[in-house]
Amino acid sequence: MIIVMKKGADKEALAEVKRRIRELGYKPHVIHGETRNVVGAVGDERGKTVLQALESLPGVETVLPILKPYKLASLEVKPDPSQVEIAPGLTVGGDRLVVMAGPCSVESEEQILETARSVKAAGAQILRGGAFKPRTSPYSFQGLEEDGLRLLVRAREETGLPIVTEVVNPRDVELVSRYADIMQVGARNIQNFALLKMLGQLDKPVLLKRGMATTIQEFLMSAEYVLAEGNRRVMLCERGIRTFETATRNTLDISAVPVLKAQTHLPVIVDPSHATGHAPLVPSMCFAAVAAGCDGLIVEVHPHPEMAVSDGPQSLRPNEFEAMMKKLREYAAVAGKKI
Amino acid sequence: MIIVMKKGADKEALAEVKRRIRELGYKPHVIHGETRNVVGAVGDERGKTVLQALESLPGVETVLPILKPYKLASLEVKPDPSQVEIAPGLTVGGDRLVVMAGPCSVESEEQILETARSVKAAGAQILRGGAFKPRTSPYSFQGLEEDGLRLLVRAREETGLPIVTEVVNPRDVELVSRYADIMQVGARNIQNFALLKMLGQLDKPVLLKRGMATTIQEFLMSAEYVLAEGNRRVMLCERGIRTFETATRNTLDISAVPVLKAQTHLPVIVDPSHATGHAPLVPSMCFAAVAAGCDGLIVEVHPHPEMAVSDGPQSLRPNEFEAMMKKLREYAAVAGKKI
Amino acid sequence: MIIVMKKGADKEALAEVKRRIRELGYKPHVIHGETRNVVGAVGDERGKTVLQALESLPGVETVLPILKPYKLASLEVKPDPSQVEIAPGLTVGGDRLVVMAGPCSVESEEQILETARSVKAAGAQILRGGAFKPRTSPYSFQGLEEDGLRLLVRAREETGLPIVTEVVNPRDVELVSRYADIMQVGARNIQNFALLKMLGQLDKPVLLKRGMATTIQEFLMSAEYVLAEGNRRVMLCERGIRTFETATRNTLDISAVPVLKAQTHLPVIVDPSHATGHAPLVPSMCFAAVAAGCDGLIVEVHPHPEMAVSDGPQSLRPNEFEAMMKKLREYAAVAGKKI
Amino acid sequence: MIIVMKKGADKEALAEVKRRIRELGYKPHVIHGETRNVVGAVGDERGKTVLQALESLPGVETVLPILKPYKLASLEVKPDPSQVEIAPGLTVGGDRLVVMAGPCSVESEEQILETARSVKAAGAQILRGGAFKPRTSPYSFQGLEEDGLRLLVRAREETGLPIVTEVVNPRDVELVSRYADIMQVGARNIQNFALLKMLGQLDKPVLLKRGMATTIQEFLMSAEYVLAEGNRRVMLCERGIRTFETATRNTLDISAVPVLKAQTHLPVIVDPSHATGHAPLVPSMCFAAVAAGCDGLIVEVHPHPEMAVSDGPQSLRPNEFEAMMKKLREYAAVAGKKI
Repeated sequence: MIIVMKKGADKEALAEVKRRIRELGYKPHVIHGETRNVVGAVGDERGKTVLQALESLPGVETVLPILKPYKLASLEVKPDPSQVEIAPGLTVGGDRLVVMAGPCSVESEEQILETARSVKAAGAQILRGGAFKPRTSPYSFQGLEEDGLRLLVRAREETGLPIVTEVVNPRDVELVSRYADIMQVGARNIQNFALLKMLGQLDKPVLLKRGMATTIQEFLMSAEYVLAEGNRRVMLCERGIRTFETATRNTLDISAVPVLKAQTHLPVIVDPSHATGHAPLVPSMCFAAVAAGCDGLIVEVHPHPEMAVSDGPQSLRPNEFEAMMKKLREYAAVAGKKI
Repeated sequence: MIIVMKKGADKEALAEVKRRIRELGYKPHVIHGETRNVVGAVGDERGKTVLQALESLPGVETVLPILKPYKLASLEVKPDPSQVEIAPGLTVGGDRLVVMAGPCSVESEEQILETARSVKAAGAQILRGGAFKPRTSPYSFQGLEEDGLRLLVRAREETGLPIVTEVVNPRDVELVSRYADIMQVGARNIQNFALLKMLGQLDKPVLLKRGMATTIQEFLMSAEYVLAEGNRRVMLCERGIRTFETATRNTLDISAVPVLKAQTHLPVIVDPSHATGHAPLVPSMCFAAVAAGCDGLIVEVHPHPEMAVSDGPQSLRPNEFEAMMKKLREYAAVAGKKI
Repeated sequence: MIIVMKKGADKEALAEVKRRIRELGYKPHVIHGETRNVVGAVGDERGKTVLQALESLPGVETVLPILKPYKLASLEVKPDPSQVEIAPGLTVGGDRLVVMAGPCSVESEEQILETARSVKAAGAQILRGGAFKPRTSPYSFQGLEEDGLRLLVRAREETGLPIVTEVVNPRDVELVSRYADIMQVGARNIQNFALLKMLGQLDKPVLLKRGMATTIQEFLMSAEYVLAEGNRRVMLCERGIRTFETATRNTLDISAVPVLKAQTHLPVIVDPSHATGHAPLVPSMCFAAVAAGCDGLIVEVHPHPEMAVSDGPQSLRPNEFEAMMKKLREYAAVAGKKI
Repeated sequence: MIIVMKKGADKEALAEVKRRIRELGYKPHVIHGETRNVVGAVGDERGKTVLQALESLPGVETVLPILKPYKLASLEVKPDPSQVEIAPGLTVGGDRLVVMAGPCSVESEEQILETARSVKAAGAQILRGGAFKPRTSPYSFQGLEEDGLRLLVRAREETGLPIVTEVVNPRDVELVSRYADIMQVGARNIQNFALLKMLGQLDKPVLLKRGMATTIQEFLMSAEYVLAEGNRRVMLCERGIRTFETATRNTLDISAVPVLKAQTHLPVIVDPSHATGHAPLVPSMCFAAVAAGCDGLIVEVHPHPEMAVSDGPQSLRPNEFEAMMKKLREYAAVAGKKI
């Protein structure tokens, strides 16, 4: 932490700041500037947020954090990329580009089986599908819940594809984990710390979706919640942030991919479906994400988007998905990955 | 819903759109324009989100919603302002300006009692204090939990002030409701629908804080979740949204006050502490909020902000709070409210 | 500037950073931390932006500015509030709340005269009206230009109200200054530095409107451009920033008022018309702005908003403006200002 | 335009809306809904912004635009991609990926020549360099102005690379056009309509950079200003928008590439240097931009970033640029483009 004193702050103010820094277990180090003084607080970084309260002392202008607040998620602690095993022979974070695909919501046996078969045929390695749906409106379809999970398992039995599905309530963690291969935390729950802590105690991979207004640093802090509880199989997913632009549902923050890669060892997935909200934009954003260096994609596919109970406009049809995958293989090859 | 057809979309495309509109239970109504056609879908508004999927039909350019998606929260359904009773003789939403004040976190008996006494003396009618703290970092203080709730009750017993405190986990709803007078949903949980549904089944007032990237429409939809379950004692709280500006912790969206007042009958509270993040900005934002027409304020007060375990920089000292309240009475009087 | 070294950066990297700091005329001061070193660069602040380039040196993690980059606009250089004289007996920035009112665009003699008379009768002290209009679309009305300026002068002659009007092209500065009492720089031109420099050489008050994505610091740097050229009669105007919220045209950043007051001696004006975009929201935002501590308001008034060539939806009718002014006097009194 | 009436608006209100629609030259078309009426205004789209003023009529809830406000920039008017000729044999917008590279500012003859040679050797086809610099601070380096233009011409003479450089003042358009091959409009001037109009009268290609808070629709309207004056050689450049995320200087809106491609025939360039602000992020964002379907890139390269007078941290060194270009060729090949 760097504590910047006000211009003209007196000696007493400076002495008090130094006293408090020591009291909190850090060593103060003063730089005497031309117009004002600056105090560094030297010591172990964790828990330093309490130093922020020094801003309330007289004579203090501002308190600037210097160090990143996460630890287990950082490359400093673990410099080599994490490889998250999903199933025997299927690992995210290595030289493979992993594609997860499927409908927004599980709607019926026919719908999920038809989708699972087609995405598998096109090269997807994991099936996505929502059984518990966090919907903005209480009057919208809320998901088939456990019935939906059972249908996903039906699809896995038939296709062999592992399944990723969302959990929204800490109470359901145990239930969902009995069916799912990957536990997904949606954008709206990225700071649902009760949920994150429970997932941290699970022996199951977790896919964390960045929230609409979550900074990259906060995103990594949410990952830290899971890691700190002992579960190291964490994947991060960029899915668009909320900005002023309305041409797309959200704004895909594509540079989050290299920024995350420079700060963390965790695999990075991109979700171009939620980021854009419009199916015609999805293929080029898949290509861009791979070129940016991501480890995987999660893409919405629906056999009849115009009939979908949720997210129809952003769902690819099976033939569109297949065409996208074909081109994707070429981009993945240039990026040094195979699908 | 208004479905805008593409320029040059053919008759078949139009016919298919009309067919699907009818199939979904609405009546299509076509306006033939000079360069393109527009189709209105007439019918009851709820559940109309499925119409959005028509965007996937060939020949459709875009689908525009016309009606607000909430119902119970709207002035159309209930044109007179709701008055939410907190305790005998204490109602939010009428001609009284209700001030809730207290520390971010309950830290100790001494701290909460000292604060409770001082905010009561200055005119606050409700005591705030966090026992379950959603913190960005897993290494930060997470709250005293049930012990914190007990200390809040101690403070209520001594001062008579009802207490408002946050609940973050659906599992804890019953526990917290045994202690609290108002159940607070924090900004991070405003789309934690599992939590909202449980609170909707409670016979207890609920204070909903707008999320950092929640639109006003989404905010009202979250209120609708609580209302739809039967609990009509809902209060809304504007607490700043996330923008590019870094001079303040968030940006207080002050115009949300009259916007909400024009759309809903629910009382509107403002939280200038979280909105600004800096104590010196809090008093003028309290005044502005009252002048904008809010029904109440929630303000962080701490006897020793420089020692606070959380949110020190944005907490007023008791004497600063007292001075603010003095001036606030004058503004409230002009706004036609008494404290 | 604080230069944060990477964890594990070697001695040579540190030595090179120190060498470059000295070369650029500053004194390096190293704080040896537990996991990394931090170097302060001590010296006069102006021009320190070149230090930012040190981020490109090996071993450097990040470069953090400590000091505010503006000087003439700061309270450190001039601790007492500036009073900007507009006309004999009319000063902005003192104990008077100055209200500027009038139509978005000057449309006709009848329109501007009718408006000028009514806003004067209601208590406005300055007449606003656009003659050069920066419009998003080339097909929209672009303003009456010099004819519009002449009509404004006609209105001034009749009512005695000084006039504020926008200049958009450096070429027109001399022309507009022959008619106007206050030169307005619109939000779209706040970083039109060529325009700012020319206005800095003028002996005429300047009203700077914050841009839609301009930080408060950048806003003050734009003021610095005018001040540095010698013109000290600068007023700042908060008019809403662009955010994700679409219920209002922009989001009024009301806390910008106390933030600016804490950093600069320049008067602060608020424009609730452009901030909200909807006339029904304007009165409460006028009240909030005064309670927040502003020095003045600029409000759009049009005799027939439904016929206005621009900004109709956000224009008050004369009787609405009059009612607003009546209540505003009460709020101003509490704020210690008279109108 | 769609005019949505308030619930319960009476016949007179509806009649008045219809009357005004006719008065403005459009045909009203009413859809009678269950709870409210909706009126379509049918007619030629240009100038329809005046219809927005109907929002001020009693009984009107909101006015929704249906059509895009631009015309010459749209694919509807010109369905095939525009090819902008820069120099004999060099066209932007076809099957070639055009790379513009060079320093942020022209600093000296040695600097610009060294850079020009190296970027040419690596495969860049156009040299960038700023002579007139819009800087946030009046105390920062403002550019070498005409001397800088002369140095750019020196570099063109030696390398044969056409030059792109920024013009910030309408007054300088003629001067800059004597030297430059492409006239660049910076992000801060994208709504400097006086400048745009002058460039529209020029016979020279124009590169328009999207503003930090400019929507895609506004961006196209700015292009329309140039096109409407007669200059059809317009290129659009996405360079990042301002969001809450601070890990990057701006947020590269990568989906703007396919969104623009679906709406306009104008070529789309991407500037990953300004978008990210950090050199290590630039190469992957170049790759992503090409995969997203852009027609060209503009990249900052400096022989000694740590000595640069501006934008050092985001400038690639020549060897880094060369390595990037090598890989870029592979991505371009997959995208069906050659460099």
